[in-house]
Amino acid sequence: MKPLIEAIRPTTFIKSAKLDDHLGLDLTIASETFQHTGSFKFRAAYNLALNVEQDEILTASSGNFGQALAYACKLIGKKCTVVMPVTSAQVKIDAVRGYGATVDLVDTAKKGRNERVAELAAEMPDAYFASAYDEKLVIEGNASLGDELAEKDFDVVISPVGGGGLVSGIITGLCRRGRTTKVFGAEPLLGNDAARSLRAGKIVPNETEPMTIADGARTISLGKLNWEIIAPAIAGIFEIPEDDIADAVRLYYGLANLKCEPTGALSLGAVMANIDEFAGKRICVVVSGGNVDAAVYASLIN
Amino acid sequence: MKPLIEAIRPTTFIKSAKLDDHLGLDLTIASETFQHTGSFKFRAAYNLALNVEQDEILTASSGNFGQALAYACKLIGKKCTVVMPVTSAQVKIDAVRGYGATVDLVDTAKKGRNERVAELAAEMPDAYFASAYDEKLVIEGNASLGDELAEKDFDVVISPVGGGGLVSGIITGLCRRGRTTKVFGAEPLLGNDAARSLRAGKIVPNETEPMTIADGARTISLGKLNWEIIAPAIAGIFEIPEDDIADAVRLYYGLANLKCEPTGALSLGAVMANIDEFAGKRICVVVSGGNVDAAVYASLIN
Repeated sequence: MKPLIEAIRPTTFIKSAKLDDHLGLDLTIASETFQHTGSFKFRAAYNLALNVEQDEILTASSGNFGQALAYACKLIGKKCTVVMPVTSAQVKIDAVRGYGATVDLVDTAKKGRNERVAELAAEMPDAYFASAYDEKLVIEGNASLGDELAEKDFDVVISPVGGGGLVSGIITGLCRRGRTTKVFGAEPLLGNDAARSLRAGKIVPNETEPMTIADGARTISLGKLNWEIIAPAIAGIFEIPEDDIADAVRLYYGLANLKCEPTGALSLGAVMANIDEFAGKRICVVVSGGNVDAAVYASLIN
Repeated sequence: MKPLIEAIRPTTFIKSAKLDDHLGLDLTIASETFQHTGSFKFRAAYNLALNVEQDEILTASSGNFGQALAYACKLIGKKCTVVMPVTSAQVKIDAVRGYGATVDLVDTAKKGRNERVAELAAEMPDAYFASAYDEKLVIEGNASLGDELAEKDFDVVISPVGGGGLVSGIITGLCRRGRTTKVFGAEPLLGNDAARSLRAGKIVPNETEPMTIADGARTISLGKLNWEIIAPAIAGIFEIPEDDIADAVRLYYGLANLKCEPTGALSLGAVMANIDEFAGKRICVVVSGGNVDAAVYASLIN
């Protein structure tokens, strides 16, 4: 089994003169869209699957973490079960199954996802239950991206924020390499729990799952472990309206030839709305992933 | 002024487990979609603008070469004039102008493109007229991609073919590095002049500009210099039906998170139709560029 550093694909750094000229800024894209399974989540999932002692891992995810964990478990030779809402897109269910994992479909109208996970956990006492973000091994895995960013000379790094797994990992990686790069988060305005938490000085959850197009950020709240890293270190959280998320997806398409999912475009959305704040800085926008349904994407770009 | 090797962006190598599993093959994508101006053409354009002694360069291009030459001339500090049909997409006209070049719009219903170029050449006696492919400096520039491919261990490289500038460059680069990697070309069946030329043992042109969705391959014939390199060295030319080109664009979207233009997808189209021929080989598919109108792309993926 390969160590993490050999298993992951390095992030893809992209410079676009068109995008820089359009914004009047010096922007570098760090794209995780070509990471295994199409998002940064593979970093976390592989690190977790590699390091927990259990041979079976259970998680709940309708999105990128499920795919990433399924593929990581396949590579490492562990069993994987992913609880997904019965309403999940068939393409996502197929992707998780394609990586050899068991998909447990739950009708969330009848039974909560957490309830189903608890049932399964009782049925599978030897399995490890993995959170997609509130988990030391997840943060450690994502810190490998922070390590990569630390080798460049950025003044500012901006990362999408959902549960906080990615941004806490980036902070961890930059910090342990002695970098003082400013790290900002960008979350959907519709689910602005991280910004509200930062203002309150404690974790404040969303009341319900926010129905943003940035489906990777439809989280109820930051994770506890993530909050402990984020709160003292983050330079700020930007709250991005839905229209700006869509504009950012379109800008990546048109000016950088980059296919990215709405969640991945949050960081560019933050830059577009705060040009003055970032003028003259060497900016890195992290694109967390690229998995987006064709119908959604077609309507966003066209 | 930077030498070519410093000015270009290295190609982006992408591996996708989903794509490999789907095809049952070992595929590596060499994507030029993140090259400056979004296509491999920048390699040629920069090498040309850098090495001709004239301070002014004239070309005819409605597509990627015009953008690439405009940007290369901007970087190098030369004047650039691009003749474009008045029917060109506004986004392409704007892109060329955005890089600081002069756009000369010709109404091709009233005056041939070549006629207009001849007029301009007479008006601009000090300008160098650049072909997009039939040109030593162009082939030399594109050979830099062959150099990069030579550093990997591929059994087979497949490249899109229009005028033959890219594939002759790849052959040149691989050959001068002592590589015997098999190089195949892939062209639209609707404009299969390269395949017919190979069968005839001499350049056979298309009767008219082929109306393929692979607009980078809407060329009347291979260039003379390109033919001299291609004819003795190419392992074969695949002729790709329009539907297969569209399927390949869609596959890149869905399985590799890669936005590519139809011309760029020709090489994958060749692989998809010839799975048995490529089984067990280490295959590299070159994606020549990523610039495609949003409306066209949306209809292709959805």
